[in-house]
Amino acid sequence: MTSDYELQVLEVNKRFYAALEALDLSQMSEVWLHEDWVKCVHPGWGLIVGWENISESWERIFRHTREIRIQLSYVTVRIEGPLAWVCCLENISNRFGEGVETAQAFSTNLFMLQNGGWLLIHHHASLTPPSSVQPSATTIQ
Amino acid sequence: MTSDYELQVLEVNKRFYAALEALDLSQMSEVWLHEDWVKCVHPGWGLIVGWENISESWERIFRHTREIRIQLSYVTVRIEGPLAWVCCLENISNRFGEGVETAQAFSTNLFMLQNGGWLLIHHHASLTPPSSVQPSATTIQ
Repeated sequence: MTSDYELQVLEVNKRFYAALEALDLSQMSEVWLHEDWVKCVHPGWGLIVGWENISESWERIFRHTREIRIQLSYVTVRIEGPLAWVCCLENISNRFGEGVETAQAFSTNLFMLQNGGWLLIHHHASLTPPSSVQPSATTIQ
Repeated sequence: MTSDYELQVLEVNKRFYAALEALDLSQMSEVWLHEDWVKCVHPGWGLIVGWENISESWERIFRHTREIRIQLSYVTVRIEGPLAWVCCLENISNRFGEGVETAQAFSTNLFMLQNGGWLLIHHHASLTPPSSVQPSATTIQ
């Protein structure tokens, strides 16, 4: 059974991807904890540390993206104390300039409970081979 | 200042890479939590779910590897409640058959406190471009 906290975390996870699809830095800013130690790895990029640098990276991505759609085909969530981690497969369709690119990435998203709300503190996404989830995986969404 | 818990987590993180370098499934088994929900992504692989599948993947990697050396050039650790996460850059030198391959991977390793000890519950490693850490990053090791 999915707990209230799990539903809240999944909601913030959805808002993260909605911000990405909307190419909206303000929405993206709302789901992240603004600290100098939060971390982000975009697929194929190096490690980015601190909200200021992460914000700049999203701005750069949004500036060079015409349209992006991300369908999550596999989502799991677990919570221990004030930390939650969501794992998901991102089915990405990316339009930039005149080109379209499709890809599949696996993402580890960590969230921290802060003043009653969950905020993203770590996003690690990396490209994976297609259809690469082991069948024993439990899908909750 | 690094706390006792942080030192313990870093020690288990070191034992994880020592097990990998030793190509020793028994040592590898000791650092993981044996549950069906723990997750692992090797660089370039798909998601693997559950200790049984993860154990098989290590066995396969060890069988096809002649020698592997991993130097960690960037390590950070944070703890919230019963969860810890270590981020590190793996400088990998991999010998298989007659070939040698070098690469750099970024890794997110999650550990959970269980009966006074920390166990690995999530390993997500992905190849990154060389020298890709932002200069603002804090290196503790």
